[in-house]
Amino acid sequence: MLPADFLGTLSTLLPSECLLTDSVECYAYAYDNSRKIFPPDAVVFPRTASEIQSIVKLCNRFKVPLTPRGRGTGTAGGCLAEQGGVCLSLERMLAIITVDPANRVIVAEPGVLNQSIQTAAQPHGFFWPPDPSSAAYSSIGGNIATSAGGPHAVKYGTTREHVLGLKAITGSGDIIKTGCYTTKGVVGYDLTRLLIGSEGTLAVVTEATLKLTALPQAVGGITAHFNDTASCAAAVVSIMALPQLPSALEFLDSQSLNLIRGQYPDMLPSNSNAMLMIEVDGSTRDIEASITSILSACQHDGLLLAKKTQDAASLWKARKALSPLLREIAPKKINEDIVVPVDCLPELLEKLEQLSHKYQLANVNFGHAGNGNIHVNLLINPDIEGEVQLAEKCLDEIFDLVIKLNGTLSGEHGIGREKRAFITKEIDDITLDLMKRIKTVFDPNNILNPGKLFP
Amino acid sequence: MLPADFLGTLSTLLPSECLLTDSVECYAYAYDNSRKIFPPDAVVFPRTASEIQSIVKLCNRFKVPLTPRGRGTGTAGGCLAEQGGVCLSLERMLAIITVDPANRVIVAEPGVLNQSIQTAAQPHGFFWPPDPSSAAYSSIGGNIATSAGGPHAVKYGTTREHVLGLKAITGSGDIIKTGCYTTKGVVGYDLTRLLIGSEGTLAVVTEATLKLTALPQAVGGITAHFNDTASCAAAVVSIMALPQLPSALEFLDSQSLNLIRGQYPDMLPSNSNAMLMIEVDGSTRDIEASITSILSACQHDGLLLAKKTQDAASLWKARKALSPLLREIAPKKINEDIVVPVDCLPELLEKLEQLSHKYQLANVNFGHAGNGNIHVNLLINPDIEGEVQLAEKCLDEIFDLVIKLNGTLSGEHGIGREKRAFITKEIDDITLDLMKRIKTVFDPNNILNPGKLFP
Repeated sequence: MLPADFLGTLSTLLPSECLLTDSVECYAYAYDNSRKIFPPDAVVFPRTASEIQSIVKLCNRFKVPLTPRGRGTGTAGGCLAEQGGVCLSLERMLAIITVDPANRVIVAEPGVLNQSIQTAAQPHGFFWPPDPSSAAYSSIGGNIATSAGGPHAVKYGTTREHVLGLKAITGSGDIIKTGCYTTKGVVGYDLTRLLIGSEGTLAVVTEATLKLTALPQAVGGITAHFNDTASCAAAVVSIMALPQLPSALEFLDSQSLNLIRGQYPDMLPSNSNAMLMIEVDGSTRDIEASITSILSACQHDGLLLAKKTQDAASLWKARKALSPLLREIAPKKINEDIVVPVDCLPELLEKLEQLSHKYQLANVNFGHAGNGNIHVNLLINPDIEGEVQLAEKCLDEIFDLVIKLNGTLSGEHGIGREKRAFITKEIDDITLDLMKRIKTVFDPNNILNPGKLFP
Repeated sequence: MLPADFLGTLSTLLPSECLLTDSVECYAYAYDNSRKIFPPDAVVFPRTASEIQSIVKLCNRFKVPLTPRGRGTGTAGGCLAEQGGVCLSLERMLAIITVDPANRVIVAEPGVLNQSIQTAAQPHGFFWPPDPSSAAYSSIGGNIATSAGGPHAVKYGTTREHVLGLKAITGSGDIIKTGCYTTKGVVGYDLTRLLIGSEGTLAVVTEATLKLTALPQAVGGITAHFNDTASCAAAVVSIMALPQLPSALEFLDSQSLNLIRGQYPDMLPSNSNAMLMIEVDGSTRDIEASITSILSACQHDGLLLAKKTQDAASLWKARKALSPLLREIAPKKINEDIVVPVDCLPELLEKLEQLSHKYQLANVNFGHAGNGNIHVNLLINPDIEGEVQLAEKCLDEIFDLVIKLNGTLSGEHGIGREKRAFITKEIDDITLDLMKRIKTVFDPNNILNPGKLFP
């Protein structure tokens, strides 16, 4: 419960329509895509940096937890008000401040949807490369908080590579300005990248200067089906050894394909046990040459069929069918996004199958194979006794395997609350302690998203 | 002078051939390309991270300044032992630990030359994009310290975009590991990018995981000459508005061209007052199309001549001729590397000419126009009374202009000691104070490169 003094002052900082305190109304801000539920005691909807600064300062005065929130599409629980307190929803910070095609820059407030940036950039021949699957309804503030990426990261990188500068309010309520407006700049410490991926634990972003990229002239696609996972993984390694990077290289395992077959019996070849969806982009002149090279790199023993697709819709059809099915079949599945070096994918995928057998847990694997970034989905039902504990043991082994293969626990979802128990597998105590002390510099009272990211 | 106790212990940490204390020998480590001279009291040449850790801890115990040094090619005085103490030369940390073409990665120690990385990557069809003009003899540790870049940054970015992870020893002597081995990863704060560009003030890098890029299939070039700076700057803006980025877009002003003519009377068209050197790379199929588009974007009123070059040597001939001439004519010139948004280049270049007239100081401008990154060279002779003071006033106005145009004080050289007096023009006090407190987290006794970067 929030102190009455605190609430009284809070209500003077914002118009009444920008503050929720009713518990039923607050409940709408209690969850994200991790499907855990932590209702905040209040929700605020600031419209300016100055309002945010006042709120942060007030929370400091009363030591009230403040949890920034974009559009709640994260999967790691990063925006959940786990310790109660105030949810700081940025959803009304919706201004696109500058569209500057001559300098390939858009400046925008954090609540602007990723899709709105694309819509603003597209008429000028540009796009903003970060493409989480939530792009249509996730905000750039949330994308920045997790350094979001998606299928096109294999060629274009993640959010980290596409932000030039930020304005932000630190956990102590200071207004800071990081980075610059130009494509080069090395003045002072790189606070821009320090904030990107920090999951709202250091500062609240109030404005972002986004670097745009020219839309490719043309896009082409290939689908390839394999008799076995090993051949498919070997093909990924061969494709990634080609000089020209594909613009997407997505993998679906046999469990994924079976799920799709359950709903759409005719979508996939019946004998396929592993599938690749490969996109290439570039000049019209280059697309055909890339397709030829990739078709040739797909030639491994277990290849059943590799062919050029008619259009983008046919390329992505299987992938788009999968997500709603997964949600339907196992609404409480455990969803990870581990990464290993690309040439370790064959070993990773083989051992994931072994672990699935060992623990007798259905495991659906798919994802951004070109980055070695695999979404592991343990299809558990937490209502079955012992299944959560079993899944935790299995996850523990999966994470150990990832670290042994020189990989990382999260490619794009972040740590949030879901993975913090595992972070010490990857980050040693000394480095983690240094991170905690950086947190203290930004947020001495630990009011900003407390408890997240650290074990 | 160093305390005898300190020197006694220091000499037990390293073999005698890895320690210099003789002042004549130390003098070889007193300068860099800023041409200021600050002799260290001792120079150490560690060969392992563990030796570095012992040295850092000893310096903490005795509060002795420790200044990391790559190969001394920086222009901002970042590696100078301004406060005396120990110079930590990384020049013997020369191991290339891993060459891993399947994952497009090289892991190397900080003393490895940029050129050695290129030589190791090239047989596998790769390169490491950071290309400072010192690439042949600067080290990757130094490149990381300044987030070095060069002509190709316009397409490929700077060091910041091409490092996946680091091992480092903090100013307090802790061994930390940052980032990961994979192209995606968002676990914990981005300490990798925080260290890149921090000019050896936070930690000493002991190992870097470098991300490689495929060599382009083909490279082509264009030289263009203009009657006036304004037309040339307008052409830069037009070229940068094309969808495909050039791989280099370099500018030389009339003063640069006159300098070259003094030595090589026949190299340049006699009526040219501004020149562009434009490189394009990509597939052989694309090069011709890019050249056609760029030649068309060069069509501004003052265009005298734009033509495809025969080969790389003829493209870069004028640029390569310039640097030694500049050094010869004004060995003590003041060399800056300001950046403005590309569409502000016409205004910047016009006003730089005005300032040159106002202060009656010869000013040679050239550089990476595609990034808006211009090397301003004030050709002063510090031995002439009042000339340094005049140059400082002129610089002050130049920096004010850059900030007014939404630019940044340094694109690739860093702040070091040369520009620290000006950093508050760009970074506000609150943000700067935050940076100082981050410095304290890494280096509580302020022994690591003390006095650098901050005013």
